[in-house]
Amino acid sequence: MAKVAIIMGSDSDLPVMQEAARILEHFGVEYQLTVVSAHRTPKRMFDFAASAHENGFDAIIAGAGGAAHLPGMVASITHLPVIGVPVQSKTMSGLDSLYSIVQMPPGVPVATMAINGARNAGIMAAQILALNNHELSQRVQAYKRNLELEVLNKAEKLESEGFEDYLNNRNF
Amino acid sequence: MAKVAIIMGSDSDLPVMQEAARILEHFGVEYQLTVVSAHRTPKRMFDFAASAHENGFDAIIAGAGGAAHLPGMVASITHLPVIGVPVQSKTMSGLDSLYSIVQMPPGVPVATMAINGARNAGIMAAQILALNNHELSQRVQAYKRNLELEVLNKAEKLESEGFEDYLNNRNF
Amino acid sequence: MAKVAIIMGSDSDLPVMQEAARILEHFGVEYQLTVVSAHRTPKRMFDFAASAHENGFDAIIAGAGGAAHLPGMVASITHLPVIGVPVQSKTMSGLDSLYSIVQMPPGVPVATMAINGARNAGIMAAQILALNNHELSQRVQAYKRNLELEVLNKAEKLESEGFEDYLNNRNF
Amino acid sequence: MAKVAIIMGSDSDLPVMQEAARILEHFGVEYQLTVVSAHRTPKRMFDFAASAHENGFDAIIAGAGGAAHLPGMVASITHLPVIGVPVQSKTMSGLDSLYSIVQMPPGVPVATMAINGARNAGIMAAQILALNNHELSQRVQAYKRNLELEVLNKAEKLESEGFEDYLNNRNF
Amino acid sequence: MAKVAIIMGSDSDLPVMQEAARILEHFGVEYQLTVVSAHRTPKRMFDFAASAHENGFDAIIAGAGGAAHLPGMVASITHLPVIGVPVQSKTMSGLDSLYSIVQMPPGVPVATMAINGARNAGIMAAQILALNNHELSQRVQAYKRNLELEVLNKAEKLESEGFEDYLNNRNF
Amino acid sequence: MAKVAIIMGSDSDLPVMQEAARILEHFGVEYQLTVVSAHRTPKRMFDFAASAHENGFDAIIAGAGGAAHLPGMVASITHLPVIGVPVQSKTMSGLDSLYSIVQMPPGVPVATMAINGARNAGIMAAQILALNNHELSQRVQAYKRNLELEVLNKAEKLESEGFEDYLNNRNF
Amino acid sequence: MAKVAIIMGSDSDLPVMQEAARILEHFGVEYQLTVVSAHRTPKRMFDFAASAHENGFDAIIAGAGGAAHLPGMVASITHLPVIGVPVQSKTMSGLDSLYSIVQMPPGVPVATMAINGARNAGIMAAQILALNNHELSQRVQAYKRNLELEVLNKAEKLESEGFEDYLNNRNF
Amino acid sequence: MAKVAIIMGSDSDLPVMQEAARILEHFGVEYQLTVVSAHRTPKRMFDFAASAHENGFDAIIAGAGGAAHLPGMVASITHLPVIGVPVQSKTMSGLDSLYSIVQMPPGVPVATMAINGARNAGIMAAQILALNNHELSQRVQAYKRNLELEVLNKAEKLESEGFEDYLNNRNF
Repeated sequence: MAKVAIIMGSDSDLPVMQEAARILEHFGVEYQLTVVSAHRTPKRMFDFAASAHENGFDAIIAGAGGAAHLPGMVASITHLPVIGVPVQSKTMSGLDSLYSIVQMPPGVPVATMAINGARNAGIMAAQILALNNHELSQRVQAYKRNLELEVLNKAEKLESEGFEDYLNNRNF
Repeated sequence: MAKVAIIMGSDSDLPVMQEAARILEHFGVEYQLTVVSAHRTPKRMFDFAASAHENGFDAIIAGAGGAAHLPGMVASITHLPVIGVPVQSKTMSGLDSLYSIVQMPPGVPVATMAINGARNAGIMAAQILALNNHELSQRVQAYKRNLELEVLNKAEKLESEGFEDYLNNRNF
Repeated sequence: MAKVAIIMGSDSDLPVMQEAARILEHFGVEYQLTVVSAHRTPKRMFDFAASAHENGFDAIIAGAGGAAHLPGMVASITHLPVIGVPVQSKTMSGLDSLYSIVQMPPGVPVATMAINGARNAGIMAAQILALNNHELSQRVQAYKRNLELEVLNKAEKLESEGFEDYLNNRNF
Repeated sequence: MAKVAIIMGSDSDLPVMQEAARILEHFGVEYQLTVVSAHRTPKRMFDFAASAHENGFDAIIAGAGGAAHLPGMVASITHLPVIGVPVQSKTMSGLDSLYSIVQMPPGVPVATMAINGARNAGIMAAQILALNNHELSQRVQAYKRNLELEVLNKAEKLESEGFEDYLNNRNF
Repeated sequence: MAKVAIIMGSDSDLPVMQEAARILEHFGVEYQLTVVSAHRTPKRMFDFAASAHENGFDAIIAGAGGAAHLPGMVASITHLPVIGVPVQSKTMSGLDSLYSIVQMPPGVPVATMAINGARNAGIMAAQILALNNHELSQRVQAYKRNLELEVLNKAEKLESEGFEDYLNNRNF
Repeated sequence: MAKVAIIMGSDSDLPVMQEAARILEHFGVEYQLTVVSAHRTPKRMFDFAASAHENGFDAIIAGAGGAAHLPGMVASITHLPVIGVPVQSKTMSGLDSLYSIVQMPPGVPVATMAINGARNAGIMAAQILALNNHELSQRVQAYKRNLELEVLNKAEKLESEGFEDYLNNRNF
Repeated sequence: MAKVAIIMGSDSDLPVMQEAARILEHFGVEYQLTVVSAHRTPKRMFDFAASAHENGFDAIIAGAGGAAHLPGMVASITHLPVIGVPVQSKTMSGLDSLYSIVQMPPGVPVATMAINGARNAGIMAAQILALNNHELSQRVQAYKRNLELEVLNKAEKLESEGFEDYLNNRNF
Repeated sequence: MAKVAIIMGSDSDLPVMQEAARILEHFGVEYQLTVVSAHRTPKRMFDFAASAHENGFDAIIAGAGGAAHLPGMVASITHLPVIGVPVQSKTMSGLDSLYSIVQMPPGVPVATMAINGARNAGIMAAQILALNNHELSQRVQAYKRNLELEVLNKAEKLESEGFEDYLNNRNF
């Protein structure tokens, strides 16, 4: 049974939001991914949020851009933790998305990620689920160790190759 | 029967939003004023918006601050014109309110006013209703002429008194 | 007889502003579209605004960028509802346009849309005209239902195809 | 045993951060509250974060202002969910705090709250713990229902008193 | 005959704009000061700008706040140099005023001063008039030398008193 | 003898600043154009500004980007009117340039143009020189009338062609 | 002989800039403190910077607000390290000061501190001098240890008193 | 023995940060360049900073983007001068990087450069080392004179060629 819902306000958010799905797959966490628009499908949004708990979800990742109301509205209806992803907008670089998601009033928190931070939304969901899932906790810890190893590996290569060769040998 | 609904996300918005009521009273436009919170009373918000048309409203003025979702969510549910008032917030001076209200996606417009621009929201509602109400149209036009007269009057006093006396005789 | 005027400060705003015309055509609302520059044709602007009512317009959509004075100046001269569209500028991404349009003083409202939000300007004009036009009201409501259906349709496809195929089958 | 740690970069953050403690008390969630400065006590910060899991914490609430590194650094060391509270700063109104906390790189999420949103940090922590604690879940749901009742109550009073009396009878 | 017009959008701008008058008095430059609102007295604004040249003005200082259209609109009508003063606004600290005044399109410049920079507007007007007025040029140069002397004098006092006494002996 | 100096902080500003030269050529105003860097050639800058008056200049146009000190420093040394052009920067879109130029302290004004507003700088210089040059004044007025005619011409074409053909027949 | 110069653009910056002097006194570092205005005393500024090295200074702390050109101009003239302090301005909260100081072009760095960060400017100067002064290095290290002890001490008190008593016993 | 450490939070910062290495090579200053991530390799970061002094470094250049904690965290652990380079980020143009680095609390300064200002970081490091290295001081002074000569040379060419040829003969 899916534990995490990944929803987004528009399918144009999918190139960003897919990262949440990919990292949850990496962690072996079941998820459902779909489009739920606060502004164009308010009823669907309301029903989705109201039934999220009974549908077995433990956390909801919601991404949206511009006047991004989806994460906050879902959080107003469910008592599950909602993780918000501000999707970069065309005209304001995502500042509108960020402010619309993070500046929630007292009583209705949204756990806000960086602009376009969908991968981190998936990791945060996994960290939350891992509190009650030892195996998942091990995977999250392994993931963090791996991040460290990748950097250490790059540092070693950069130091041994020298920065000029390192740059020439890669595309930045 | 009330023609304009004035709603706000919190009673703490009332010192700002009362200006919309006062100017509608000045124009002789019936209104209802109440608190409807998108985040704390989502069901009330849905019901309010869904029934606004059949309840006889022609326009909805919605004020909110911070992650201000009320105007946009109401606009997503009703086909009536929604006029949004970004209420100045404590930590971001209302930029969060403004961006959350104005940056609506294609399909769901909110007629956004200046930060704290509740009086203008009332005037805009009157301008809309006046399209089909000759007497109200006369009142709106008289109001604008009066704005002009007030400025002309002040200009005359300022020119005749001189700016030093003008400043001394008044509190700024 | 045209009911809505669509004006813009420069013909370089046309790629953005044409969306207002297209959606009004979709709704079957008559409109006139032209260039009126507050800064380069102030007399034309003045005459346009002063005669808008007697010329039969019910609403004016005005788009401009940078120090965007056109919507506010037109609103200062006519008592018709003015809908402002901040056009994205080259050097400030439209923040200058937005602030210049939305921050109007008490007495002279402009119903401000999102940056580049010309389609929404057309929808807002239709919503206003629909208050007194049952058929138009039906069309606006149908448009909103259609927005919903499009999202529901995409959601269904996304859920059945899976996000990877959905992404591969489309250009984002 | 305390389940939630509430840490802040300076005791001058306490007037803001106390709200996290108060709401956790309301929910009956055990917490520890102390000062941990990333910049002035980096070793304490490292030790705190590295031992947080074995010390029995399930979530960490970290508040800081200005170049607010505490939440992100703690998140880099522990695999527990970290909830960040940007504390309003004197010279940048908390924009520096917000950007420093929310814009975390892929791999190390911080669940960011609104500027000064300490109460919401406590609620988010409770929502997370409630996933595995039925009684706490009931309390969180009751809290949300109570938020709703308070607004409904205020709305009723505002409607029956009228806005002028409502304003006169209260301090805003 | 007055050479410089000082106009402002509202008499509430007078506490700021009086500084332009005072410095022109210091330079012995004749001026007229009054209120001209682009938004509330558009006709007065048009007439004022259109007749400014024939009325003998050589430069126009225009101050306004919020969606500050006065300087740009006057500049669109007259070919005289227009000096714009963005007046600090309540909700956006004058950023809206600044952007509305400075971001003029090609063809219609406004010589923009700092937010609340009315004294500098007067000095700029004097610098312009001084190009053709040797005595005024001497006064402007003397003013600048005096600025220098004041700083040198303060520097000397600060160095001889020491900063602690210097602070104690004065109100900052 | 050149009446207007056009200086810029770097030759990389030339693509922007050439517009000032071109419009002055159009007006028949003599100018000198060169590079003067406040930061890399401070002595040249000092000497340039100190001798600008005796070298016969009546106005100085100074363009710079980033921490743009050139216009303000030149204004601190000469009593001639200085017109500042904030050149769009790579990392801050010219906001740094704008703030560095416009926010001058009392006593030392810079007549600030829009970001990249070099053409307007040239027009402002011509407007200033035209106060004492009837022929130039005529040219400036003709230029403004021509701006108007161009817009009227475009408006006529747009109205007669219709917006779709108008768009198709041109590159935007 | 003084090793560090502390200069500021106006004596109104002294309440902020005195912190640099106090911390240098704490470290036993000789300093000279005075007013040097880039805009009102450009010659003094030029001479000060040009002779700073031969006058025995090893570092220059320069504070300024608004269009803050002092640090960058001094850095353009001397090869000594210049530490810039953006002083909070009245109308832009110091953003103008910060951008004017930090966004220096390649070739002329200014070591920029936080807005109003004068104490840190003094510490940075001490850190630089300490590279060649063992005793000063010891004092800087002791200062940092003391920062740590103060936080540890506060943390202990906060933990033992509880946050309510801690708040009640102190003024925040 | 290397005197300057150049570290960055990710190898994706290398295209920017290499400029620090290149200018130090130009000055003949030994450096070490590597990747140290505050968020992904916190232990490496701690060890690096704690041993920087005993490893013979005199200054540390640290570049990072987004929630850029590396410079400030290194500065919290070592007493050496830390020079911070805010690397331009994808979603906020580096404003997040700048605020995260520059807004350090009292006690822990970071000498902040412009966004992407890695070359200036290298120059600042050289200026600091030059205080105790006469030959290096000569090289830094020669570098600054050369900057001046380059501008003078370009100015001469621009003046002799005329701006049109100058532009045509070069790529801008």
